[in-house]
Parts: sequence; structure tokens; C-alpha cells
Amino acid sequence: MTQSPRQISIPRGTHDILGPQAPLWEKLEASARRVLTCYGYSEIRTPIYEDVALFKRSLGDTSDVVNKQLLELKTSNEDEGLALRPEGTAAVVRSYIENNNDKKEPLSKMFYIGPMFRGERPQKGRLRQFHQIGVEAIGPQAASPLLDAEVLALAMHLLTECGVKTPKLLLNTLGSIEDKQHVSVFLRDAFNQRRDLLCEDCRQRFERNVFRVLDCKKPPCKAVVAEVLGNQGLPLSAESMAYFDKVKASLTDLNIPFTIAPHLVRGLDYYTHTVFEITSEGLGSQDAVGAGGRYSGLLHQLGADPKTEFSAIGFAVGVERILLASGQTEGIVKGLDAYMVVMDHVFSARAFNLIQQLRLAGISADMSYNGASMKSQLSRANKLSARFALILGEDEMKSEKIAVKDMTASTQEIIDQNNLVNYIATRLKK
Amino acid sequence: MTQSPRQISIPRGTHDILGPQAPLWEKLEASARRVLTCYGYSEIRTPIYEDVALFKRSLGDTSDVVNKQLLELKTSNEDEGLALRPEGTAAVVRSYIENNNDKKEPLSKMFYIGPMFRGERPQKGRLRQFHQIGVEAIGPQAASPLLDAEVLALAMHLLTECGVKTPKLLLNTLGSIEDKQHVSVFLRDAFNQRRDLLCEDCRQRFERNVFRVLDCKKPPCKAVVAEVLGNQGLPLSAESMAYFDKVKASLTDLNIPFTIAPHLVRGLDYYTHTVFEITSEGLGSQDAVGAGGRYSGLLHQLGADPKTEFSAIGFAVGVERILLASGQTEGIVKGLDAYMVVMDHVFSARAFNLIQQLRLAGISADMSYNGASMKSQLSRANKLSARFALILGEDEMKSEKIAVKDMTASTQEIIDQNNLVNYIATRLKK
Repeated sequence: MTQSPRQISIPRGTHDILGPQAPLWEKLEASARRVLTCYGYSEIRTPIYEDVALFKRSLGDTSDVVNKQLLELKTSNEDEGLALRPEGTAAVVRSYIENNNDKKEPLSKMFYIGPMFRGERPQKGRLRQFHQIGVEAIGPQAASPLLDAEVLALAMHLLTECGVKTPKLLLNTLGSIEDKQHVSVFLRDAFNQRRDLLCEDCRQRFERNVFRVLDCKKPPCKAVVAEVLGNQGLPLSAESMAYFDKVKASLTDLNIPFTIAPHLVRGLDYYTHTVFEITSEGLGSQDAVGAGGRYSGLLHQLGADPKTEFSAIGFAVGVERILLASGQTEGIVKGLDAYMVVMDHVFSARAFNLIQQLRLAGISADMSYNGASMKSQLSRANKLSARFALILGEDEMKSEKIAVKDMTASTQEIIDQNNLVNYIATRLKK
Repeated sequence: MTQSPRQISIPRGTHDILGPQAPLWEKLEASARRVLTCYGYSEIRTPIYEDVALFKRSLGDTSDVVNKQLLELKTSNEDEGLALRPEGTAAVVRSYIENNNDKKEPLSKMFYIGPMFRGERPQKGRLRQFHQIGVEAIGPQAASPLLDAEVLALAMHLLTECGVKTPKLLLNTLGSIEDKQHVSVFLRDAFNQRRDLLCEDCRQRFERNVFRVLDCKKPPCKAVVAEVLGNQGLPLSAESMAYFDKVKASLTDLNIPFTIAPHLVRGLDYYTHTVFEITSEGLGSQDAVGAGGRYSGLLHQLGADPKTEFSAIGFAVGVERILLASGQTEGIVKGLDAYMVVMDHVFSARAFNLIQQLRLAGISADMSYNGASMKSQLSRANKLSARFALILGEDEMKSEKIAVKDMTASTQEIIDQNNLVNYIATRLKK
């Protein structure tokens, strides 16, 4: 074994979550599940990949996500195209339709937690595998402004519970599907007259999805938008404005602050009515931690019963962005309850039997199996943040006792080996 | 919207986990994390996909998994081949090496929980996305029979805690790397003389990995194996047998029953010394819920420091198989704490404010936002297994009271709206 094969690296744009990071993720997910459950949402786990057709149909054939960012699988002839999911909504809606949820309940409230994938250009420093927590409320009875307020309240509650310090809610409305069609004609016409002033991207965008121009961060485009819309929102119908007023009134009643962002759109075709983004200070220019909105057309687009009227609203927050915004970069060190130290390797079998008794009782315990020195065993106990060191020497072996050292208080007691599990369990409860 | 587009189905060989199944998975994962932590293992989450080279190097170029079952990604020229992970060990070892764990600690104990992927022929009814819980103990100090016993004890404890009723431990040893080479020559020679008696698969197998012939379930091959080996295990060195004796003695000391399975091998090239399988009654012919073994050569194979001697041992259990073996097919219904019932839709805003107070206090609560009838609201409260129905009528609105109906006891109390959160929190604690 003189020449070793080369190491294999982790794929670009992905990360291992390990060490003190893993308990941090676990805690965040547990907090999220707790909050989501309080609002009546149930977990759904969809597969890691779906039919490409699902994403084409939901996100749009011409969207960047579908055209440039899907990570597709090599498939045999039997399978149609498959791709790693770039987001969570499409699959939840696919599942909703496939399982005929509308025949079972008036409103289905679901949440998901898991990895998403986009074939981003690695030089941008973006992740190809990132993680989202999202909710979708879907059903024939999903068209209520109180549901918008619920989802917004939930998003803010969730982020606060996950440690985001100053989440800021930016809110807008795109109006109904009919409104969007009218506004789309209006905007296309207005931008067409000012076409030369728009950036290259926007000149292309406005053919595909004119609303995206409102999102452009470039000063000339912002100037065009300001000229066309002023500081007003989009020109919508009275019904749509009344709906939005109810959403705002509910938020005010719940004491949830929000800022109206009249040019906030969200890239995806399927949004209607309420759209929102939640930002956090300290994230720099990419300051969104989550976003979402109402989507009414998507259900029929994906094949839901045409005889039923559906609506839906949802959002997703980014786990990596939450962790960044919450400043919890160091993770959580989970200390061991007890670490066994043997004065002589020949006591190892006895020591092993004792720690197994602890483990079976739900007490975390470990030891070295390789006859390490006392010094290195004690230093390992420290490294593993053990609450107690259990010391087994010759005297203890003879008298069937064991020394228990409290690593915090630096006190020590000698107890019967028979009593070890009870003793540690009692000490840990205090 | 008269003609609806066709529905899109879930990809073959995958499942949505939803409804009462999701809390069951969550509970199982929480139990697993608790047990694994008791034994000093820390979670690691590796990416969903890895370099194809990693799997070729670890599982073998000629293995079925690599040749027939990898789900590969379509990749651009910049990326080398990538594939969805078919198992967890390779990635954990890759991470161990990449992060220089051996410079940080004598033994790294890691566990993973997550989806794995194999492009199985769908007609076999096998899953393409399935889920595993696995552990790997890796390090310069991993070569101790007590560690084998720990890992075996952990596997049995884990399965029992996850509800598998009668896990049965089948145990064997393949000896050291040198033993394996000698045995391989011996077996190849013995089988070659009886070549005509072997099945077609085994005639090919024995060229690639002669140990696989020991695994063949076909009677003629079993007869050949019995003739070659008798009821004995493999002819191993005294050192290897002494090592195995120590593992068995430790298990006996811990009161963990096991059965020696002298022909148990495990398909993968990298196993040495202890190999095992855990089966459960009631799973039919495919009765394994988990399996694992010691692997010493893999670390250097994947590029670990050639100047350091490594060993490692691990196992994986299948989540779907655990659930099948535990008979928990119905899942877990998570009841809601409180469901709000309004006698008139105009009270909805007040009701919404009240349930938001409950939700912020960590009490799960819900209501209908669409002016459903009293009857359908109460039936929804029942359907959602609500512990309390909160009833808001005209009298309650005027007097700022609310009726709280205990859905189990069918008793009812009228309380101040101001006191609702405290009241429900106190009742739930009882």
C-alpha cells in the first residue's frame, strides 16, 4: 500500500452537514415541525426527483429554472425525463391531484422539509443542493383572505422561532388571473414604448413574462418602471383591491407589521393575488429568507378536476439562509452523558458491559476500546463534553464499585456498579 | 377551462410519504437519533448525489449496483459523472477522508438517515427511492472486537426501539484481507472443479467475486457449497478466528443472542472479518431488515493517508423494511389541540385572532375560513381529532366569552376569551 489512489471530492455546490452543524439542523427542523403543526399543517415527503414535464408545466417552459437549472437524470427509454426537484410546490400539487385530496377535505394544509436542486453555475458560489421548508394550503376552500393572513403569520412565526432576528415582510398583490392578463397587456404596451431604455435582459424578459421587468434591479429599468407605475401598485380591479385590503386588515389585527412593495412580483407565472417576500438584515444584497404567494391557476394547469374551482397559497424559506440570518454559525455541541475511563485495558470488558447498561437506559455513554492511556482517555472525555467520567481501577474492579467524576463540579463519588444506571439517571434529571 | 391537461404521475418506484405515515416516519427517525446518540454516534448528512467514481471505487466496477442500478445525472462537460447515492457508506468514507478526521480523533462514529436510490427494474416491485439509517465507525483505532460488539448491540437496540419485534442476528467472519485472498484461491479452485454443477449466475459470479457463490439460494449451488465447506465456516487463520471469538464472547456477555451463519458473505468486495445480517419474521423470503460488516481496505481504496492504518465497521437498516417488520402500517394520527367553530361567518375575524393567540403559545389550532355550516365545522373538528372545540356564538361575541367543548368527555365550559390560552394550556397539561 505504498501508492494511494487519489481522493474523491464532494460534488461542487454541495456540502456535508456534520459535526456541531447536524444537531443545529435537527433542532431547526424540530422547531419548524412544531410551529407548522400548530397551524394545522401536516408533513408530506415527495420523492427527490419528478417527471421533467411537471416542472415544465408548473414553472413554465421558458423559465430559467427549467431551461438552465434542472439537474436531469439519464433515463432509459421506458422512463420519461426525470429531474431532481428544483422547488417543492409542483410535487405537492402533483400529489394533491393524484391522491384526489379535494374529494377528502375542503382544504389540505401540507408542509415539506428537504433538499432542492439547481444546476447553478458553480462560480457564482451558489449551492446546487440547498434546503427548504415550505407550506402549501390547497383546496376548493382555499380562497379566503384569512388564509393569506394565516400563511403570512405562519411564515413570520416560523422564521422567528428558527432564530431569524428581524424578519421583514414585503407584500404586494398581482390581482386575479383576469387582472394579470389586463395588466400584462398594459405593461407590455408601456414598456414597448420605452424599449430602448430597458436593459438587455428586460428586453427579452418582457416578451416571456413582462412582470419580471418590475423585479429588475438595474437603475435604468427601475426608472422606466417608476415612470410607468409611479409609486402605485398595479392597476387592478376593485374586487382584487378589496381582497388585498382584507388581507392587510387581518395582518394589522394580528399585529404583524408589513411593508407594501408595489413592484414586488415573484418570477413564477403561476402567482396571482397576494405575493410576498421576507427579508432579513445582515444578509447583504441577497437578503430574502423566504417568499411565496397565492396560485390559483396551477391546479388546473397540472390536471386537477376542471369541474372544481381551486385556489392555493404557499411559501418556502431557505434553511441555509435562515441559519445565516440567525447567526448560528457555530452549531450545537451535544455533550455525552458519561465517558468510561479504564485504568488498565484488561478492565475493558467489564467497562463495556457497564456502558451498555447505560445505553440501554437511554444514557449516552462511550469509551475507548484500544487501551489508550488514562491521560488520553480523560482528554477524550473532555473533548466529548462528557458530563461524567466513570473511572474503573483495580480497587473498583475488586469491590464492584466505580468512581463517578462530575466533570463540571470536579467532585467525585464512589458507588456500586449495580447502582450505576440509577445513579446517573438521577443525577442527569437534576 | 373546459379541457384539462393530463395529470402527471409520481415517478415509478417512488412514493409520497403523507397523512398518518409522515408522523410515523418522524417518530421512527427521532427514536433512531436518540438510540444512535446514546452510543456516541453523530449525524452526518452527505449530498444526495456523488461522483460516479466514488461508487465505482467502493462498490467495484463489476458490481450489479454500479453496472445496472446507478441513477446517473446528465452532466455538462465541466462535471465528471454524478449519480444518486445507492448506499451511504461510500459518501461517509469520502467525507471522513476529505475532512482529515483521522488527524482530529482516534475513532469517528457517524450515522446517517436518508433516501438512497437504485434504478431497479420496476416490475420487480422494488423501490427506486428507499430509505436507510446507517452507522459507520471509522478510524486508526477502529480495529477492536469490542467495537464490533458495540455496533452489533447498537443495531439490535435500534431495531427493537423502532418496533421490530423479533430481530434475529446472523453472524459470520470473512477473516483478514490476507485470509480473504487465500480463501478466494481455495474457493475458486474448489468451485472450478464443480463448475458444471453451478447455476449460470454463479458460473459468472465466481470469476468476479467468488464469495457471492456462498450466497446463492439455488439448491444445486447450495449442495456444491455444502460439499466444499461442510457445515464449517471459511478456513481462516488462527488470528482471525481469535478475533471472531472475542466478538462472540462480548455479545454473550451482553446477553445478545446470535446465530452463526457460516455461508453468510455480503456482496460487497470491501468486507473483511465480521459480517452480519439481521432478519425479522413475517417479511417473507426477503427477510433482512439490515446488514453490515467490517471493512478495512476501503479507506485506502478511497485515498486515505497510506501511512496510517485504518479500520472501519458499519451497517445500514432499511426504513421501509423496519416499518413492514414492525407492523405499523396505519401510521399515527396527530390530533389537533383545538378547532374553532363559529356560529356566523361574521365572527371569523375574532375567531381568527383567538386561534392565532393559541398558535403563538404552541397550541395547535385551526378553523374554517369559508363560512361553512355549524354541522360541517363540528364534523371537521371530529375529522381532525380535535381535543377541544371552541364555539363562538352571538352571546359569546357580546360577552367576550367562548364555549370550550371537551370532545372526549363531551363536557362544555364557558370561559373568558382573555383566558383562552391559559385555560387550554392548563387543560392540555393534565
